[in-house]
Amino acid sequence: MRVTVSRKAHFNAAHRLYRKDWSFEKNDAVFGKCNNPNFHGHNYELIVSVTGEIDPETGYVIDMKHLKDWIKTEVEDAFDHKNLNLEVPEFADLNPTAENIVVVIYNKLKPKLTADQDLEVTLYETPRNFVTYPG
Amino acid sequence: MRVTVSRKAHFNAAHRLYRKDWSFEKNDAVFGKCNNPNFHGHNYELIVSVTGEIDPETGYVIDMKHLKDWIKTEVEDAFDHKNLNLEVPEFADLNPTAENIVVVIYNKLKPKLTADQDLEVTLYETPRNFVTYPG
Amino acid sequence: MRVTVSRKAHFNAAHRLYRKDWSFEKNDAVFGKCNNPNFHGHNYELIVSVTGEIDPETGYVIDMKHLKDWIKTEVEDAFDHKNLNLEVPEFADLNPTAENIVVVIYNKLKPKLTADQDLEVTLYETPRNFVTYPG
Amino acid sequence: MRVTVSRKAHFNAAHRLYRKDWSFEKNDAVFGKCNNPNFHGHNYELIVSVTGEIDPETGYVIDMKHLKDWIKTEVEDAFDHKNLNLEVPEFADLNPTAENIVVVIYNKLKPKLTADQDLEVTLYETPRNFVTYPG
Amino acid sequence: MRVTVSRKAHFNAAHRLYRKDWSFEKNDAVFGKCNNPNFHGHNYELIVSVTGEIDPETGYVIDMKHLKDWIKTEVEDAFDHKNLNLEVPEFADLNPTAENIVVVIYNKLKPKLTADQDLEVTLYETPRNFVTYPG
Amino acid sequence: MRVTVSRKAHFNAAHRLYRKDWSFEKNDAVFGKCNNPNFHGHNYELIVSVTGEIDPETGYVIDMKHLKDWIKTEVEDAFDHKNLNLEVPEFADLNPTAENIVVVIYNKLKPKLTADQDLEVTLYETPRNFVTYPG
Repeated sequence: MRVTVSRKAHFNAAHRLYRKDWSFEKNDAVFGKCNNPNFHGHNYELIVSVTGEIDPETGYVIDMKHLKDWIKTEVEDAFDHKNLNLEVPEFADLNPTAENIVVVIYNKLKPKLTADQDLEVTLYETPRNFVTYPG
Repeated sequence: MRVTVSRKAHFNAAHRLYRKDWSFEKNDAVFGKCNNPNFHGHNYELIVSVTGEIDPETGYVIDMKHLKDWIKTEVEDAFDHKNLNLEVPEFADLNPTAENIVVVIYNKLKPKLTADQDLEVTLYETPRNFVTYPG
Repeated sequence: MRVTVSRKAHFNAAHRLYRKDWSFEKNDAVFGKCNNPNFHGHNYELIVSVTGEIDPETGYVIDMKHLKDWIKTEVEDAFDHKNLNLEVPEFADLNPTAENIVVVIYNKLKPKLTADQDLEVTLYETPRNFVTYPG
Repeated sequence: MRVTVSRKAHFNAAHRLYRKDWSFEKNDAVFGKCNNPNFHGHNYELIVSVTGEIDPETGYVIDMKHLKDWIKTEVEDAFDHKNLNLEVPEFADLNPTAENIVVVIYNKLKPKLTADQDLEVTLYETPRNFVTYPG
Repeated sequence: MRVTVSRKAHFNAAHRLYRKDWSFEKNDAVFGKCNNPNFHGHNYELIVSVTGEIDPETGYVIDMKHLKDWIKTEVEDAFDHKNLNLEVPEFADLNPTAENIVVVIYNKLKPKLTADQDLEVTLYETPRNFVTYPG
Repeated sequence: MRVTVSRKAHFNAAHRLYRKDWSFEKNDAVFGKCNNPNFHGHNYELIVSVTGEIDPETGYVIDMKHLKDWIKTEVEDAFDHKNLNLEVPEFADLNPTAENIVVVIYNKLKPKLTADQDLEVTLYETPRNFVTYPG
């Protein structure tokens, strides 16, 4: 009986979509107003989903308090009220698109889980645009 | 052409997370404030999803009125405004975690479906915590 | 320039609607399944709204961190994962209807505000039923 | 690294569920009040999800502006503020159930994608009823 | 202690915005695609709010079961799965704009209340457009 | 018959809360992590509400298309994907708190309305924090 347990969280951040090795014109053509050199920002909403067997002792797949703590230390403390391009090391040379952010979050949380637990992360950049990475 | 048809429903209930065969201290260590002996409660929001072939006659995978009726008799009438530990037989000896509740609901609804229809049940314990059981 | 600043919060609790001085039959006639002696429960969602002048120094009507702290100490710590009838002193002799709960919350938060700040509290008992008390 | 990128959209339309080759009585028995000859309507909410590799150059699976444009031309311009039975050619002889609508939308959008991109479409007929077609 | 008690409900309907005494061209200029002669439709979401004194006996401003019943008989049974222009008498000669619909609903519900209870009705025509009538 | 007509909109922006004439330490003490010199950001969700008489000719309080256009030119084009501190003139010397932003938006939209129309603007800085300015 494998069940998926999901937890919602959120963080607010500024970012700019661009490549340092491209001209402003090329960045502008590809990323449009997301290439604003003065940055813009989002309320990122996050859903972290862990799939595993129900522990017959506790009735839990995972202790939600642990999941909540890992999201806090790995994601919220690292990203909240930050400028993703300037202050989050993973994006020093990686364009902080929603796709790249969701993979970075996945890679930070995956080592916390046991070998038989699967992880999927969904990230809302806006209420209308979101991305999902199942690993 | 297999399509998934989903229906939302809800019920309100009280519960307590604990094992009768554990000491209060052990229950407290594992389940924290969810082990309150006086119970606490939730508005459970439910999504029942049935996957099957579209019937070329009707254009339906399943008649939503039937699905709605089964959710009413099997889930809402059985769980709504109840104390899950004291009044719902399935939890007499099963800890009513969200994981265990979603499996119980799945097992109550699955016999209603035909052999080639798949069932998945998602249960929100709070707007921030939810579980999914695909069978 | 008076602006209203609102903050959302939540708590989960069990309750039973009834009067100790009424027979079970009378309670049943008036409160129906909400009179279940074994309790039921809700995810209460709360909106606390403070209206006041914008401080020209800070641009704040109120420091949201203070508001968040007061909601935590006065409401969440007092009500979350509790049985309202048995464990919250305000409801020892007061029926914990949504109407009475919202007034109790208002009365706990009002003394925190300055004389020229107005308070309004909205409480969702379910996503479909809610109450508002403007003082 | 395959990631799913999703975009929400919406359109408002009128429809009637029935088959021209059935009697009114048979349509009434199967489709109930959805068979109203004067039509009824919905705010359809749509989620279009594209799964593919992240382009290492841009960090995008797909340029969201393109996806948004395709949804506009293929779905919104074709369906919004329309009577699905009378004005949308795909439903001239196809009952506009949510299941059939979601397959029609899938078939209109799929040719826009590259061979290694997967498409899934979810359609909310109401906030409580929705369908998903993964192709 | 006057408290406002609110209840959400919904209905689905088709409508067309136009005046019979105007030319098609004038209707088109004023109402645009809402003037489609074949109709379009919406999922209308409704919030009915009653303000009154808390009854010290029950702790209720109003019995929510009564409010729910009145919404069912006066609004849902009358409007749901209907064509507002063709099947709802109030709109035989009244353009079914959201503004006019909300006033009609108000006028149908107001006589149910006592003299000291205030009524306010909010109607969502789409998740992005809504109207409120406080009487 | 005065009715309130409301329209939702949104924009994404970066900002920093601080006063140029205060030390970093004082800004830090008052504004905490919102004082990040590299900025952070939000998805601002906006509700613009206009109250007026229903025009008996059209059944409209206001033509929603006009309201939508004014929100686009005055708010979305001016604020979306911008750095509020660096690129929006109104905040060159005004701290872009939610309170100050909502008053700026009100002042930009009010001149569009007729003398007997009232305006109220609500701005969500996050799904949990919002402000309302009724003028």
